[in-house]
Amino acid sequence: MKKNEFELIETIKRRFAIDDRRIIGIGDDAAKIAGNKLITTDAIVDGVHFIAKKVDFDDLGYKSLAVNISDIAAMGGYPEYAVITMGIPSNLPDENIDKFMEGVQAIRDEFAFEVVGGDTVRSETFFVSVTMVGELFAQPLTRDKARHKDILYVSGSVGDSAIGLHQILGDLKYEVADPEYFIGRHYCPTPRVKLIEFLVKHYHIRACIDISDGLLGDLMHISRASNVGFFLEIDELPLSGHKIGDSIRKDAYYFYEMALNGGEDYELLFTSPDEISVKKVLESVGVPITPIGYIDQDVTALRFKENRIKLEDALKSYQHF
Amino acid sequence: MKKNEFELIETIKRRFAIDDRRIIGIGDDAAKIAGNKLITTDAIVDGVHFIAKKVDFDDLGYKSLAVNISDIAAMGGYPEYAVITMGIPSNLPDENIDKFMEGVQAIRDEFAFEVVGGDTVRSETFFVSVTMVGELFAQPLTRDKARHKDILYVSGSVGDSAIGLHQILGDLKYEVADPEYFIGRHYCPTPRVKLIEFLVKHYHIRACIDISDGLLGDLMHISRASNVGFFLEIDELPLSGHKIGDSIRKDAYYFYEMALNGGEDYELLFTSPDEISVKKVLESVGVPITPIGYIDQDVTALRFKENRIKLEDALKSYQHF
Repeated sequence: MKKNEFELIETIKRRFAIDDRRIIGIGDDAAKIAGNKLITTDAIVDGVHFIAKKVDFDDLGYKSLAVNISDIAAMGGYPEYAVITMGIPSNLPDENIDKFMEGVQAIRDEFAFEVVGGDTVRSETFFVSVTMVGELFAQPLTRDKARHKDILYVSGSVGDSAIGLHQILGDLKYEVADPEYFIGRHYCPTPRVKLIEFLVKHYHIRACIDISDGLLGDLMHISRASNVGFFLEIDELPLSGHKIGDSIRKDAYYFYEMALNGGEDYELLFTSPDEISVKKVLESVGVPITPIGYIDQDVTALRFKENRIKLEDALKSYQHF
Repeated sequence: MKKNEFELIETIKRRFAIDDRRIIGIGDDAAKIAGNKLITTDAIVDGVHFIAKKVDFDDLGYKSLAVNISDIAAMGGYPEYAVITMGIPSNLPDENIDKFMEGVQAIRDEFAFEVVGGDTVRSETFFVSVTMVGELFAQPLTRDKARHKDILYVSGSVGDSAIGLHQILGDLKYEVADPEYFIGRHYCPTPRVKLIEFLVKHYHIRACIDISDGLLGDLMHISRASNVGFFLEIDELPLSGHKIGDSIRKDAYYFYEMALNGGEDYELLFTSPDEISVKKVLESVGVPITPIGYIDQDVTALRFKENRIKLEDALKSYQHF
């Protein structure tokens, strides 16, 4: 295939354009369908998104649902129903499937949705395809609603998943103080359902996206969809500094680059005209949020420790193709 | 994997049992979720369900949606929204994806649903995973509602898809008069949405299932779920006799066996206490239905041209594992 993933999605989006304005189709974290429902789907494939021989299958079960819940949360909703399809090689041990289902059960119990169906098919390549249906708390938080002077916030910490991945791959350039923490964050991201419920109840949240492609790539999705620029203070990004330890002083940008382009953090990146009380949010739902910049009608600019960084230098968005 | 598909589904079903009686979870053609909605998912994999090098990709697009629509119809509903995930090998030509989408567009236009999302991932093995959301016309037509003395009906003609498949594979034992017809029926089955809408409006339909595993295998699903037996007149099964031609006189059971165990016909198999007017149904929706036996509380018996056939001889249900 010559097209990259984003070109392909654009082609498909045009072909399946929807007239009904109550429905939001292809192009956001999840689609909005009739009855205030959301639907999203995400697949993971052996050799591309994980290595079956190296991964714990309960982590895989947990994560394959978590990424879908995260999409539902990013639209401003909570998960209700999941269907799970597995492509299973004939030599895959039964206990791997059992462990996978244990991971699914753990996250189901945590987020109180139901697993209502699925399909099991034989496949040379092991894959998992999950579809999640959810319900909106209020209005859908699409990518195209960011406005001039909105403050840009991010939840939790970013870069963790990429640090964990490079730790697993064995090519992390520096030692970190707590490698297990980062590996855990890579395998078991926390969908921010409670956070978004609290935010939409107490503040005016405009655009929202979950960080799957990388903070900067996902910010570009908001920027393009909303037709606005942004100021981003890279050194304001909330890294897990104390889990990284001393290495961050040796080469800070290496770790900030993980946060910018690493992807798979499944934190929420959102804009609001409101000055949100970080303290109140933390006390109420136990999740930190951090202002990292703001939206500008025309200009896009990035800074790192008082220095301007060119967008094209900062942007190396993770692409699946 | 040592478990077969049905054993695996049983394990998963127990694990994800649902307390809420308004919801129907794993184990039927589609799940029923809140708000009278249905959800189902079906995946097809290169080398298992089709051969990518031999198939027309528009047929593949059509069929991957058709099988899901058929599940929705079998529960007594119509399709509303689809999400489509594709696992794409790096060497797959772009035009194959375009053709696939043309097939999807054709069936979308025919059945008036919306494609609202999806995912594209790289995968060594090409696969397609579709999830369809639909709405019930009336009550859900589950497998467990067949009752003593219900008449057993099947829509359209059966065995066509299996004859088409063996024609494609080159191992059909006899020549048929119209091979293209059977190949077309294999690649482009017709989901029976209009039929089921008419039937639930005018008659009392009890159990219903779509024929994917094979008529007899799917009848066994009804039988087990409803805890009843059945009388089946094998020579009453509606074959496409004039499309088969003279060969049927040489070895009739060969073709009836295709109808019994071939699978993938995506016709509806349903039970009703009513004597349904075959003529009225045909005139109203253009689809023949045929009474082929009836439900019995205790006894299961099959006959072919006045001879008793043992269930275990007749039953060689198609299994994906």
